[in-house]
Amino acid sequence: MQKKAVILANGSFPTHEIPLNELKSSKYIVCCDGAINKLDDAGFEPYSIVGDLDSLNPEMKWKYRDIIHHFANQDTNDLTKAINWCLENNFSEVVIVGATGQRDDHMIGNVFLLPGFAKKIKVKMLTSYGCFTPILRSKNFDSYTRQQVSIFSPNSETLISTANLRYALTEQKLEMMYQGTLNESMGDSFRIEFDGGPLIIYQEY
Amino acid sequence: MQKKAVILANGSFPTHEIPLNELKSSKYIVCCDGAINKLDDAGFEPYSIVGDLDSLNPEMKWKYRDIIHHFANQDTNDLTKAINWCLENNFSEVVIVGATGQRDDHMIGNVFLLPGFAKKIKVKMLTSYGCFTPILRSKNFDSYTRQQVSIFSPNSETLISTANLRYALTEQKLEMMYQGTLNESMGDSFRIEFDGGPLIIYQEY
Repeated sequence: MQKKAVILANGSFPTHEIPLNELKSSKYIVCCDGAINKLDDAGFEPYSIVGDLDSLNPEMKWKYRDIIHHFANQDTNDLTKAINWCLENNFSEVVIVGATGQRDDHMIGNVFLLPGFAKKIKVKMLTSYGCFTPILRSKNFDSYTRQQVSIFSPNSETLISTANLRYALTEQKLEMMYQGTLNESMGDSFRIEFDGGPLIIYQEY
Repeated sequence: MQKKAVILANGSFPTHEIPLNELKSSKYIVCCDGAINKLDDAGFEPYSIVGDLDSLNPEMKWKYRDIIHHFANQDTNDLTKAINWCLENNFSEVVIVGATGQRDDHMIGNVFLLPGFAKKIKVKMLTSYGCFTPILRSKNFDSYTRQQVSIFSPNSETLISTANLRYALTEQKLEMMYQGTLNESMGDSFRIEFDGGPLIIYQEY
């Protein structure tokens, strides 16, 4: 069975309709423990709550006692704990929402965790402005004309080529993290090819 | 003469008192052109307006005609244009505000531009939650007990050591961008030493 979870992370609760609709339509909301008050206030029902439980108040601990999963490992952050829980529970796909809009260092850290997650499970992150997709191999993306696109290459040696983006790359490295930003789709799809990797692709909504 | 400019970037207008106070106390607000409406609405007077002027309406073009500086180069973003203008006009230090809170790819791109700027001018970026400081050599930082600190190492080969941070590094590489996040100061200062670099240090307010 193909099961898709929506993970609510510890950043700002989603306001954009795209991540919000993911929450609304999901039977499997996996909530990082620091986000449970926000989820509860918004009237959503979690499927499970994952974390070290440091940030859970007694009322929430009682209300959700049957679906709380405690991971004490201090070496991984809450988002990683939630992903690991999804892996252990046979989910094949996760959509991460609520991971941005608070501490900027967490946001950057979370984005660069995505390729590691992608090695284990199909994953993307929806923010208030767009979607981050980690890719381990060349891929076609659905798009629209003038969609803003950025490419992040954590491994600066990766050779990247693009098709149907305004500023075409041809077996080029992105040695600086900002060099792949500010690109634009020229139609209803584009393609990213590369040797090495991984890459993280950002598409504005 | 030591002159400090405050650059207002094209993200969300600052709401936190720390970046807001920088704007209030500055005689030299250098405004990226996409941010002039927000600055004007907030009742601040720009010292100069820098950009490709694509996003400036006729009213603003007229009102500020004497302090508008047009840079057409499409290969640099607005923040880079503003930094270059400050360099040409003999500023020795810049504080960047308003660079976050909108498109997430721009935010990441801007943070990773900081080390390049630091080679030319003293620079830091103030967000709604903390301060990013790029460093080219080992440095002591003022801090407070339990201040949240993250270290980003764009060059994954850099060997890093820390003093007075909870999770000490000793000649360690941060091969993944998230590995240096979630650290914490143990007192009123801490030290970051490294070979290679640059690094970007984030301190929560």
